Amino acid sequence: MKPNPILFFLLVILSGTWCYSQSTPPAVLEDFKPSTLNQPGQEYPQVNSQGYARFKIMAPAADSVRVSLGLGGKGGTKLAKADDGSWMGTTAGPMDEGFHYYNIKIDGGKFNDPGALNFYGSVRWESGIEIPAHDQDFYALKDVPHGNVVQILFPSKSTSTSRRAFVYTPPGYDKNQKERYPVLYLQHGWGEDETAWSNQGHANLIMDNLIAEGKIKPFIIVMTYGMTNEIKWGQLKSFDITPFQTVLVDELIPYVDANFRTLANPVNRAMAGLSMGGMETKTITLNKPDVFAYYALLSGGTYAPTDIKDKSKVKLIFLSCGSKERPEGVKTATTALKDAGFNAVSYISEGTAHEFQTWRRSLYQLAPLLFKK
Amino acid sequence: MKPNPILFFLLVILSGTWCYSQSTPPAVLEDFKPSTLNQPGQEYPQVNSQGYARFKIMAPAADSVRVSLGLGGKGGTKLAKADDGSWMGTTAGPMDEGFHYYNIKIDGGKFNDPGALNFYGSVRWESGIEIPAHDQDFYALKDVPHGNVVQILFPSKSTSTSRRAFVYTPPGYDKNQKERYPVLYLQHGWGEDETAWSNQGHANLIMDNLIAEGKIKPFIIVMTYGMTNEIKWGQLKSFDITPFQTVLVDELIPYVDANFRTLANPVNRAMAGLSMGGMETKTITLNKPDVFAYYALLSGGTYAPTDIKDKSKVKLIFLSCGSKERPEGVKTATTALKDAGFNAVSYISEGTAHEFQTWRRSLYQLAPLLFKK
Repeated sequence: MKPNPILFFLLVILSGTWCYSQSTPPAVLEDFKPSTLNQPGQEYPQVNSQGYARFKIMAPAADSVRVSLGLGGKGGTKLAKADDGSWMGTTAGPMDEGFHYYNIKIDGGKFNDPGALNFYGSVRWESGIEIPAHDQDFYALKDVPHGNVVQILFPSKSTSTSRRAFVYTPPGYDKNQKERYPVLYLQHGWGEDETAWSNQGHANLIMDNLIAEGKIKPFIIVMTYGMTNEIKWGQLKSFDITPFQTVLVDELIPYVDANFRTLANPVNRAMAGLSMGGMETKTITLNKPDVFAYYALLSGGTYAPTDIKDKSKVKLIFLSCGSKERPEGVKTATTALKDAGFNAVSYISEGTAHEFQTWRRSLYQLAPLLFKK
Repeated sequence: MKPNPILFFLLVILSGTWCYSQSTPPAVLEDFKPSTLNQPGQEYPQVNSQGYARFKIMAPAADSVRVSLGLGGKGGTKLAKADDGSWMGTTAGPMDEGFHYYNIKIDGGKFNDPGALNFYGSVRWESGIEIPAHDQDFYALKDVPHGNVVQILFPSKSTSTSRRAFVYTPPGYDKNQKERYPVLYLQHGWGEDETAWSNQGHANLIMDNLIAEGKIKPFIIVMTYGMTNEIKWGQLKSFDITPFQTVLVDELIPYVDANFRTLANPVNRAMAGLSMGGMETKTITLNKPDVFAYYALLSGGTYAPTDIKDKSKVKLIFLSCGSKERPEGVKTATTALKDAGFNAVSYISEGTAHEFQTWRRSLYQLAPLLFKK
């Protein structure tokens, strides 16, 4: 019996430990600094060199304040009232490196931390915090030539509106008027939107840095909204790909090819997605084998050799996830694909779960493999 | 004695009634609908056809919940606890048309409304609500060709970093490779940033619609962060323009001229700003008379004829504000400029105060007057 790919996808992403490091906590070092994702001038939340996070919320008359981050399954971090009317607390242990969404429960209501910037996840703008990673250099803002992130509004007859997408154009795009570029269509996960890969993922900075180091040939990235039919988390099993597939393949791709200097053919077109975006990538690449030649699922399931009808049309299959998800599934699937003659590559992000640090690293690993053939 | 322009600017903006309509409230019609600026799927906040706003905040264990919007000087709108644990309330009267920032006080802490989108104002991401305006058509998202909003990261030696700006390029910019365009440098107000004119102001949609109707010749708009030296509201009197002037004139303008197809000369370059951005516009245009030929202050003070050394270099002075600010100041200054032989135009936004509806309308009035000579 062929396994149901969507059920498998759900198993993969639900089996992760999500975001919390489970090692025994060491003594807490008092070298806390404001998170790099704080709103301008805000001192809290803070993070220390071990990856602990500390929160401070002003709410003098509140009865209880709790942060959703902390030990998984134990309700997060409970804050205690300080003398100045604020509520403070530190996570019980170090967090995984990278980006985490969170929110604050105050007297039974869910709010954002006024100190932190907001990021769209879980179908709402959530607070975000950054635990400095040992490898943060690859997505740092550096003194290198920078590409642009272009907001486009493209006409969509199937949804009777103008839809938004963001297009990363590499440094030099506006000057090298004779050059045409391959394109990666890059999808966010459930509850996120077209802002995620730039805001949380730093996709543009990852590309700028890879290009500056000469590690990749420049290409374009297109990011749009993949939850066209407003799927709820519990309804993923009955997800209908048709509305989004129409927007992507029949509306967005022709618009991008008409308005940007693309190489408009399958061997210069890739599709990748994280989590639910991986599910979408798998379904659409299999439905439309003449549109994309490069496929990548980031914490978003796997392909089996039998999924693919014409092997010659697939130039690369890239499968990744965090070591705290189900790496065996990714490795086993990659081996099976290789044995069947596919150019398959797997990547496991060490020490991370179903979160953006896994996907930042995955993009960094994927980019040099694209558009090689 | 020459009046101090900064004191005058403070007087102008502090004398407005800000956002609240003072007419006698009529009976409240029960035709409330979700605000167009709500987060996806959120039912509250709502607005009715008269301009009343209704709020609903879930916080079952809170002692008090208050919304900052409402009667000026009376502490906003106090919400009352409903049976389901939520807090609800309606403004005591209709609000002015257009966009308003707000926040929620819960048990002494300041938070955002989880139902509303956030907009950067008052040096924090604030909740936003939209009261439908009778003239909202000019900034509506329509089925017309759309320009792009391009996020650039430009090198800034004076501040030792890459700085962000947004560049509006008109429809057809990428296709009409032989065409070069004039540029408007457009500044936000105090406590806002480079996202304000697109997010709150809909500057891109105003331009798309004006171009589609053939009312203006396409031009580029550049929006960057004007609070380079992190001025506090109470310190505006001692504001030093030098750091921002250096970023704008010596770093951003050369970058834009090198990377976009601009007409790089004063008669094809305008500067405009709202509120504090008007103060910056006035100071920089007077300091750098060979850089810009078109000047516009939106609720941001006025020019006197004696401010300007060489009349021949100034193609237009545009002064505007809301009718609830100090329109006499704008009108008197415009008359004086005209009498002195300047091409000066004033615009008063009817029924609005020191808020974004005034500035959306001002841009709509200003755009057709630019780059005519």
